[in-house]
Amino acid sequence: MYIGIDVGGMSIKAGIVTDKGKLLFKNSVPTPLGGNDEFCKAMGEAVDNVLSEAGCSPNDIDAIGVGAPGIIDRENCRLVYSCNIHYENAPVGDYLKSKYGTNVIAENDANCAAVGEYYASENAGNIVFITLGTGIGGGIIIDGRLYSGSNGAGAELGHTVTHAGGRKCGCGRCGCWEAYASTSGLIKLAEENRDKLGLTPGISIDGITIFNESEKGNLEASRIINEWIGEIGIGLTNMVNIFQPDEIIIGGAVCAQGDVIMEPVRKYVYENEYTAPDKNIKKVRITASRLGGDAGIIGAALLWKNKTSK
Amino acid sequence: MYIGIDVGGMSIKAGIVTDKGKLLFKNSVPTPLGGNDEFCKAMGEAVDNVLSEAGCSPNDIDAIGVGAPGIIDRENCRLVYSCNIHYENAPVGDYLKSKYGTNVIAENDANCAAVGEYYASENAGNIVFITLGTGIGGGIIIDGRLYSGSNGAGAELGHTVTHAGGRKCGCGRCGCWEAYASTSGLIKLAEENRDKLGLTPGISIDGITIFNESEKGNLEASRIINEWIGEIGIGLTNMVNIFQPDEIIIGGAVCAQGDVIMEPVRKYVYENEYTAPDKNIKKVRITASRLGGDAGIIGAALLWKNKTSK
Repeated sequence: MYIGIDVGGMSIKAGIVTDKGKLLFKNSVPTPLGGNDEFCKAMGEAVDNVLSEAGCSPNDIDAIGVGAPGIIDRENCRLVYSCNIHYENAPVGDYLKSKYGTNVIAENDANCAAVGEYYASENAGNIVFITLGTGIGGGIIIDGRLYSGSNGAGAELGHTVTHAGGRKCGCGRCGCWEAYASTSGLIKLAEENRDKLGLTPGISIDGITIFNESEKGNLEASRIINEWIGEIGIGLTNMVNIFQPDEIIIGGAVCAQGDVIMEPVRKYVYENEYTAPDKNIKKVRITASRLGGDAGIIGAALLWKNKTSK
Repeated sequence: MYIGIDVGGMSIKAGIVTDKGKLLFKNSVPTPLGGNDEFCKAMGEAVDNVLSEAGCSPNDIDAIGVGAPGIIDRENCRLVYSCNIHYENAPVGDYLKSKYGTNVIAENDANCAAVGEYYASENAGNIVFITLGTGIGGGIIIDGRLYSGSNGAGAELGHTVTHAGGRKCGCGRCGCWEAYASTSGLIKLAEENRDKLGLTPGISIDGITIFNESEKGNLEASRIINEWIGEIGIGLTNMVNIFQPDEIIIGGAVCAQGDVIMEPVRKYVYENEYTAPDKNIKKVRITASRLGGDAGIIGAALLWKNKTSK
């Protein structure tokens, strides 16, 4: 059995997960606002809670995996920096190792989710996992193993330019896929077309507004959604042409919309991918996340297994 | 020892290569214009020539690897289709196996070159190889092994859109990296700015023209080259953000220009890649091909080793 910890801006979640990837118990504590000490203690609290809930002792646990946003020092198992969590080079590995006497491993949160989705998938050795939310994150599984680049900083799939010279992205470049195909990209597109949408002046636009308008028959809202789906499709097709994986798995807020988005996205990719003329070739499967919000905890828990299994 | 065969539109080259990747003997025959039979025979001729030149018998050879453009049926070791070579589903595996009694393996030519460059590199487990010529081809090495996707059709790195809605690409999409950063992209850019270049009306423009003009002090030619280097940089930075490999290796006509291109390209990538703020992180090396025109033969020869080694 493993423990997975999913660090977020609002809460630290901990879960007990079987080696097949079943989440048995889950607990969470608020993310503290102090520094490293408070942060590590809060992590320990979440782990204590879930162990006690499960009636388990640390001896029952093979390893603890920690998933967190931002920069991670994998070698020393430290959480280096995240723009919205209060720690700096937090020594989570040392802390958890000495408190529970287990192996500890840390990884970027989108990479953790990719690992979780990999174990939840079937007959897929090569997977590209993409979280489409306010930003775009990615995780890559090659031959059953997490690939995060030679320095651990790879799989920044949202920070690939699809619109050279286009919208400024938070990363500093212009025209990143994230700036167009994230939900922030959808909102930006709606704001650029606010007049044509005919919304009450001053009303703030979010993703739900646009989908609601489209359902009510607002043609401009539908056009905006279609354009945005095209933006998702452009980047996904790029990933298909690069990786031709067994499966592309889409997580995050977007996949919650289900087939309203997934169906046209699949259509876009199959019509545009490079291998389209070769009818006999095996097509990539494009699926929605199977684990939803639990992908991060489950994947963090299975990091150790993924790294050490043969 | 291995034999590598590099199939091109003009010639079929065969070489004898050591298991360390040293090319000992090389021979070539013109690519025939007949069908499969003529094609297979020509291949055999190139192999016979190089064996005889080296004073070797087929028993001295561990495997033959074939690199070819276009669509390849790896499972049955057949060359399915290439737009400028006269064969259709040519059974090169059966032919070479029965003629020489060795293992035979076939692979896309850019992937072969990636394998060759991998064995010529040092301390690099993860490599992205990119050929920049009239088109853009790619090959991916992950943890020392060729990665070509679950269906063998991956690593089409030139067919990733960097200019959504931009120039039509041969693959059918609009705005592919290949349409901007290949030498064809450079020529297209020059043609779009022909008036400002002030060339003799009617003169046809090629890559060399533009570099010559720039050296003569034609500022517009220099501006065009800089813009084109930016296009190369955009796609390379995308690849760095995705793969963060140990090394990106650039082959093809472009790398022959040497540091005139390589230096500004490196600068672009290091200034724009996602991890730039984290100064301690290991940077990708960006290097020019070490094998040049022999990468394809050497890589084809080492395909079997790359596939079967542990």
